[in-house]
Amino acid sequence: MHPYLKGYVDIDFTETIDDDVDLVFVATPHGVAMNEVPKFMSKGIKCIDLSGDYRMHDVPTYEKWYGHQHTDVENLQKAVYGLPELFRDKLKGADLVANPGCYATATILACAPLMKAGVIDGDIDVDAKSGTSGAGMTPSARTHHAFCGESIIPYGVGTHRHTPEIEMALEMFSGSKPEVLFVPHLLPIVRGILSTCYMRLSKDLTPEEVRSIYEKQYGGERFVHVVDEASIRAVVASNHAQVSAKTFGKKVVAFGAIDNLVKGASGQAVQCMNLMLGLKETAGLDSPGLGV
Amino acid sequence: MHPYLKGYVDIDFTETIDDDVDLVFVATPHGVAMNEVPKFMSKGIKCIDLSGDYRMHDVPTYEKWYGHQHTDVENLQKAVYGLPELFRDKLKGADLVANPGCYATATILACAPLMKAGVIDGDIDVDAKSGTSGAGMTPSARTHHAFCGESIIPYGVGTHRHTPEIEMALEMFSGSKPEVLFVPHLLPIVRGILSTCYMRLSKDLTPEEVRSIYEKQYGGERFVHVVDEASIRAVVASNHAQVSAKTFGKKVVAFGAIDNLVKGASGQAVQCMNLMLGLKETAGLDSPGLGV
Amino acid sequence: MHPYLKGYVDIDFTETIDDDVDLVFVATPHGVAMNEVPKFMSKGIKCIDLSGDYRMHDVPTYEKWYGHQHTDVENLQKAVYGLPELFRDKLKGADLVANPGCYATATILACAPLMKAGVIDGDIDVDAKSGTSGAGMTPSARTHHAFCGESIIPYGVGTHRHTPEIEMALEMFSGSKPEVLFVPHLLPIVRGILSTCYMRLSKDLTPEEVRSIYEKQYGGERFVHVVDEASIRAVVASNHAQVSAKTFGKKVVAFGAIDNLVKGASGQAVQCMNLMLGLKETAGLDSPGLGV
Amino acid sequence: MHPYLKGYVDIDFTETIDDDVDLVFVATPHGVAMNEVPKFMSKGIKCIDLSGDYRMHDVPTYEKWYGHQHTDVENLQKAVYGLPELFRDKLKGADLVANPGCYATATILACAPLMKAGVIDGDIDVDAKSGTSGAGMTPSARTHHAFCGESIIPYGVGTHRHTPEIEMALEMFSGSKPEVLFVPHLLPIVRGILSTCYMRLSKDLTPEEVRSIYEKQYGGERFVHVVDEASIRAVVASNHAQVSAKTFGKKVVAFGAIDNLVKGASGQAVQCMNLMLGLKETAGLDSPGLGV
Repeated sequence: MHPYLKGYVDIDFTETIDDDVDLVFVATPHGVAMNEVPKFMSKGIKCIDLSGDYRMHDVPTYEKWYGHQHTDVENLQKAVYGLPELFRDKLKGADLVANPGCYATATILACAPLMKAGVIDGDIDVDAKSGTSGAGMTPSARTHHAFCGESIIPYGVGTHRHTPEIEMALEMFSGSKPEVLFVPHLLPIVRGILSTCYMRLSKDLTPEEVRSIYEKQYGGERFVHVVDEASIRAVVASNHAQVSAKTFGKKVVAFGAIDNLVKGASGQAVQCMNLMLGLKETAGLDSPGLGV
Repeated sequence: MHPYLKGYVDIDFTETIDDDVDLVFVATPHGVAMNEVPKFMSKGIKCIDLSGDYRMHDVPTYEKWYGHQHTDVENLQKAVYGLPELFRDKLKGADLVANPGCYATATILACAPLMKAGVIDGDIDVDAKSGTSGAGMTPSARTHHAFCGESIIPYGVGTHRHTPEIEMALEMFSGSKPEVLFVPHLLPIVRGILSTCYMRLSKDLTPEEVRSIYEKQYGGERFVHVVDEASIRAVVASNHAQVSAKTFGKKVVAFGAIDNLVKGASGQAVQCMNLMLGLKETAGLDSPGLGV
Repeated sequence: MHPYLKGYVDIDFTETIDDDVDLVFVATPHGVAMNEVPKFMSKGIKCIDLSGDYRMHDVPTYEKWYGHQHTDVENLQKAVYGLPELFRDKLKGADLVANPGCYATATILACAPLMKAGVIDGDIDVDAKSGTSGAGMTPSARTHHAFCGESIIPYGVGTHRHTPEIEMALEMFSGSKPEVLFVPHLLPIVRGILSTCYMRLSKDLTPEEVRSIYEKQYGGERFVHVVDEASIRAVVASNHAQVSAKTFGKKVVAFGAIDNLVKGASGQAVQCMNLMLGLKETAGLDSPGLGV
Repeated sequence: MHPYLKGYVDIDFTETIDDDVDLVFVATPHGVAMNEVPKFMSKGIKCIDLSGDYRMHDVPTYEKWYGHQHTDVENLQKAVYGLPELFRDKLKGADLVANPGCYATATILACAPLMKAGVIDGDIDVDAKSGTSGAGMTPSARTHHAFCGESIIPYGVGTHRHTPEIEMALEMFSGSKPEVLFVPHLLPIVRGILSTCYMRLSKDLTPEEVRSIYEKQYGGERFVHVVDEASIRAVVASNHAQVSAKTFGKKVVAFGAIDNLVKGASGQAVQCMNLMLGLKETAGLDSPGLGV
């Protein structure tokens, strides 16, 4: 399938998975994962689900945004939201992890510190931009180069499924639930997400105080960095994220940048696996972004 | 200078401009125009200034955002803001027109109808994205392809000079001044601007009512169109603009799309000239966007 | 279908075409056109076919490269190859015109003058690069942005159907048939073709003599220009073409640049129509490229 | 300088280099390296020069193409051309290595096997395409996004300095010197080179025989792969190269794809260092391309 991986992987595609594996990455469409996960869980195999099936803890919310019934409510309650920088302790003992959405990761990382500090008032407007690889490799009208290659295209305005995911994760982490208006845009690049988040402060804070809130949250992290200007190129092809924030009176604009295919997908899944299995958290992930 | 224009223009570059011209397009840097414009005005020659020198009617605002003294306060008072769809009547008799900024045009067109209808409450967050031609043809670190070609780069966050221009124009047109947080981003395309504007409604409105406010404002316009999804490719290489809006409870997201080099610059200047000289408003401009 | 054309076209899509039209542009897939064209021709309606069905004058060549039988051999003999700069006289009286392929146009314009001057020896290597709009608007794996957006992808190496078309047109125009190796590449831009053609001179020529051969051929043309460096941006969105050539001893590299959607398709078809109907050749087409 | 490398490198920028280092990577402009290299060599420090100063073994050729005198002729004779797949044995004992140019690497890898097999007749036309990072990070008119971002731009046609480098390396490796016409083009992507090489066979070979010549040469290599279709995305961000070839009668088109910043620059330099110091050749380099 992928000749460029020759010599790097020797795993065969198989119809079934042996019972003696420690952990399974479930990479199926939404609605399929909830049929597969219980089979593994019942055998004591840990799972990381990369679909949206276990991200919502609230069944009605899931059913509203995904448009079908949830058939594995039992495991849904157990699933831990796989953002290590916010939920590391829970991940260490987890049997089932819901790997976060790509947009959700970039946005939550950018907003979480201020939310937790209790200095955000009211709703959050999230203007997110993603490279086209976020849509997968199945051709479509929107990702056809002649359509999207020299434009920026808003889509799913206010209706994207990462909206409740962002709200839920921010509430779990901070204790208060924001109302998020999430507007994704398709960028004419292949990899990378930049999430620009507009928030209102509930009290006066200097830029230094805002920066200090971010540093306090992420200062010890290996993969999340507080910088002056969050940059896609700095993190692309790596599991790193960059966040930055600018303050104007009572307004804050926070930026989150990730590679949607790494910190926004498989890289983060590996980071979760490392925590679940008691491995070194950075194992297999410790390389820098491309820069250029 | 531009071999591809061979056969289309026969105007020579000259050191001076004859006194018998009707109108001069002043295309100089900020701070230079205010030295040139008075010379023409004193001879009764109409001027359209494409710099920022005559956009602010308020001298302190100009001096704060542009960083130097304004030396032609007299003409500053006379200058009409050159957005025909909002200020057509004033433009018809104008002797001096300040041609709007590119970002300002896309943003004002998207926000003006709701502002005028008096249904917007509080501040506006503007997440704007521009092609690189907006920065001119002088090479720079930010517009170097290897830096910007596969990224989206926020810059001048909250400090871009189009901020007070947008606030002023919206106030003149609607009667009430919004507080605008303007965040421009550099897109990896050459031409085109998309401005995504986050606003709060002061009262409940259905999507149909919101649409109807836009239709009422622009229904008769040749160059501004209310559509379901504003698209850069639909307007690129033309003087057309597209606006669209989505409503979610008390929130509205409005989009404005233009070609920054046409409706955002020279095309709009020609449209203003047509009005100032009593020509047909669409003369020289009546061609569609590329679409693809 | 195309909201951005509102106000510019008022033609309805209809199931059938009235018999009183002067001319029909047949824009169907290869193999379909040869079923439609005879119907119009029998009614005395002129046709311009934009598919490949009438480009080859030689039936076996058509059948070899297009993979099916030709069912309208009679009209095939009458079809004139629609490159006005090379076959203008024949086009003036033509009833059926085969509109050239996009790659073929860029390549033939670049090579024809030297071929006609009889100074080319042996075969020609054509390294052609096209924007993605050349593949149409139907999504496919190759034109999926995440696949092609940050790469350059050779395809149909030596097997592309424009190969025999280029050979035939050059032979018709120059009297001698070159052997062409044609290698198309998909570029990560939307519009534009650059064809880089490697040829061998049969005798010593100075760069000035080579230039002079081109100037002699195209000096009086409105749409084809001999320049120092052929540029896609100079011609994009217009019916213009640029050609240039560099000489190194006995080698020549010739470049041809067009917009594949205009001079490489519909624009050239309109130019042919103008000639066929006795209209001004430039009618509807006389606007410059974008430049930027 | 590069915040994204935080935690990965702890080397300071210093004015001077300690005498106890084993090896120095000399990364200075052409003409500067030949002043620095002798200083290190005289102290017994091995050098890898990334400029063009030690690539030509022939002084007049250097001086013709680089436009200035060579001031270190002594070391020039000792320098080994740093393409491990062709000159591995010489590199193992080398004290001074000239790291190849990026275009040269892609082109030589594509042509060398057929040249060595003695089946190529006459000259080679090389149509090379490079991402903009090949030009470095200094802004220029040609790499300004608004100029190059939606185009493909030939430059230095027949005059690029990699021309004699390709000829020299192919001659050293194969024993016979080809005449190369090298035409580089600037691509609107950041990273990656595709070199399309047009050659003529001196005898009839089937596609299988051609493939077998390549497999024989590169079959045991870790970083150079013979594939059906060489792809930039398969190798980008890695030290891997892909080569492929298509045969048409007596013609062959060979493709070479690399990341210009890795196999075309620093990655290849590390590979050379590993050989020079007796380390494992793949140390620090053993990761796959991005694929997407």
